[in-house]
Amino acid sequence: MIPDTVSAAFYRGGRLLEVERKPTVPPKEREVAVRVAFCGICGTDMHVFHGNMDARVGFNRIIGHEMSGVVEATGGGSCDFTLGQKVVVRPLDHCGSCPACRAGHEHICHNLKFLGLDTDGALQEVWNVPAHTLHELPADLRLDHAALIEPVAVACHDVRLSSLRVGENVVVIGGGPIGILVAVVARDAGGSVVVSEVNPNRLAVARALGFDAVNPAETDLATEIQERTGGEGADVVFEVSGTQSGVDAMTSVAATRGRIVMVAIHAKKPRIDLFQFFWRELRLLGARVYEPEDYGKAIEIIARGGEVADTLITDVVPLADVQSAFEALDSEPTAMKCLIKVGMEK
Amino acid sequence: MIPDTVSAAFYRGGRLLEVERKPTVPPKEREVAVRVAFCGICGTDMHVFHGNMDARVGFNRIIGHEMSGVVEATGGGSCDFTLGQKVVVRPLDHCGSCPACRAGHEHICHNLKFLGLDTDGALQEVWNVPAHTLHELPADLRLDHAALIEPVAVACHDVRLSSLRVGENVVVIGGGPIGILVAVVARDAGGSVVVSEVNPNRLAVARALGFDAVNPAETDLATEIQERTGGEGADVVFEVSGTQSGVDAMTSVAATRGRIVMVAIHAKKPRIDLFQFFWRELRLLGARVYEPEDYGKAIEIIARGGEVADTLITDVVPLADVQSAFEALDSEPTAMKCLIKVGMEK
Repeated sequence: MIPDTVSAAFYRGGRLLEVERKPTVPPKEREVAVRVAFCGICGTDMHVFHGNMDARVGFNRIIGHEMSGVVEATGGGSCDFTLGQKVVVRPLDHCGSCPACRAGHEHICHNLKFLGLDTDGALQEVWNVPAHTLHELPADLRLDHAALIEPVAVACHDVRLSSLRVGENVVVIGGGPIGILVAVVARDAGGSVVVSEVNPNRLAVARALGFDAVNPAETDLATEIQERTGGEGADVVFEVSGTQSGVDAMTSVAATRGRIVMVAIHAKKPRIDLFQFFWRELRLLGARVYEPEDYGKAIEIIARGGEVADTLITDVVPLADVQSAFEALDSEPTAMKCLIKVGMEK
Repeated sequence: MIPDTVSAAFYRGGRLLEVERKPTVPPKEREVAVRVAFCGICGTDMHVFHGNMDARVGFNRIIGHEMSGVVEATGGGSCDFTLGQKVVVRPLDHCGSCPACRAGHEHICHNLKFLGLDTDGALQEVWNVPAHTLHELPADLRLDHAALIEPVAVACHDVRLSSLRVGENVVVIGGGPIGILVAVVARDAGGSVVVSEVNPNRLAVARALGFDAVNPAETDLATEIQERTGGEGADVVFEVSGTQSGVDAMTSVAATRGRIVMVAIHAKKPRIDLFQFFWRELRLLGARVYEPEDYGKAIEIIARGGEVADTLITDVVPLADVQSAFEALDSEPTAMKCLIKVGMEK
């Protein structure tokens, strides 16, 4: 049963989120109403909070997209979901007719709508979404853990595009939430992974999860990787730092014919050692969001073990405290992943 | 019969090449003595002439590597070539034991010797080379045309690594000799090719060979390519210009998921729009020299028709005039490819 009104967090501009009651509407044809359980705060959400995306989101937007929940009601059409089914939403709505869609790359549709930015998102107790965005979860998967599936799916996409093979040497440059998840998925795929990170808290998280972690401010990363790989360098490099020093490092640690996956968003245009691309036939592979199969893999990984989720989830706060949660993430660099508890228990 | 002495062009430093007689030595085991017919002057040779590679080549080096010739004598071992057989040399000698060689990428061997730079080259009447570097030519292939096989093989490697498919849209940024040959090979592979070049002489050569050619100083290249491709952009882009403006153009003309092949040598580190790599999942593929199969394809292309060779070869001068040939290339931007006639008739 969908209640008449639900609580939702609206972005109002000027680093302000307001929780208000809003009236619900029943799901339309080919839509599903999801009762949201948890919603993680993503770097993109912080970007909204900082006012950097005001032109895109406006001042009446319910944000949030790293969520978990259960099916509350279904609209008509091809919505054959069981009520109460645990689900996550792949928050991408594509146009179906642009060159990227026609080529089968719907996830990088030229007119892509990202749910929670271009339309209302998951920081509301009941969220109506297109049925095609839903992925069903195993019944015994904890819904707090499941809120990590979206960022894990990002990592699964990155690792899949890298064509990582068992036994290959991997360097992940940048050990924030996405970098750590890329390391987790790369190790799961058989890679031998080193994480490069300067923040001591993040280094500690990487090491707690069993990764070799190097602080490039203390140790020359290229020399370290050369020594660890017998002079070969890294077969696969993930640039997740978004910094010039990360871009410098990515070419210096890569093996001949190494694949470098560009995960980070570089708003500025950094300088790149293009000579190394020529000389050693390096490859740079851009990677953005995810495709359905990446969600499948991410659900499998999260369902297989909760250690990663338990380590990365550093805070869980109720929806009513969303403003202070965003403020805390701004001021506390020790936090990795904060979940907003939107609705039901785990 | 190998004569006792032959003429050879030695690089002496300070923009000076001296033609002198030198004593010959018989080919050693697994070597072949090639009587050189023609040798093209490459951009790398101009780089040597300008003194930029003195530390690598020294002041007693016979340069040259874009050559054609016939087998004059064979050493022992596995040298089963027929005397008089027309051949070209793939001027790469690899170590066989480094990580790149072990991975099957001998052409980017960590200890690669480039014949004509790291060892003596083709600007001598008789050239002893490792037998494994030889490719046999059809008996009716003109030896002046065959001197273009080495740069055509560069282009074949670039196009092969791009995985170009029939009907795909291609932009070649830079219409010098290598850019034009990349365009030729890309068209041969079924691509729909546009050449971007600012030099009017080179634009004329591109158009004479039937290519659509755009001067980006007069026409906005990105807009032009968007219009020509119905908003899709170029599936494959070859950056052959070695300039910052070329690097800017390569991301702006590429389609979503487009492949950009880095052919040019960028001595400086240009700024790159990495955001586009992320946003549209672009791919950058470094490409250097060639592998044996690229020589096979290049021989097939040159054997199939002489129009390209006849258009690109703008000068043929005798070995005795090598110094003035290099000086002329420096001062005459109208020249495309100058061949040195080292020995026999075509």
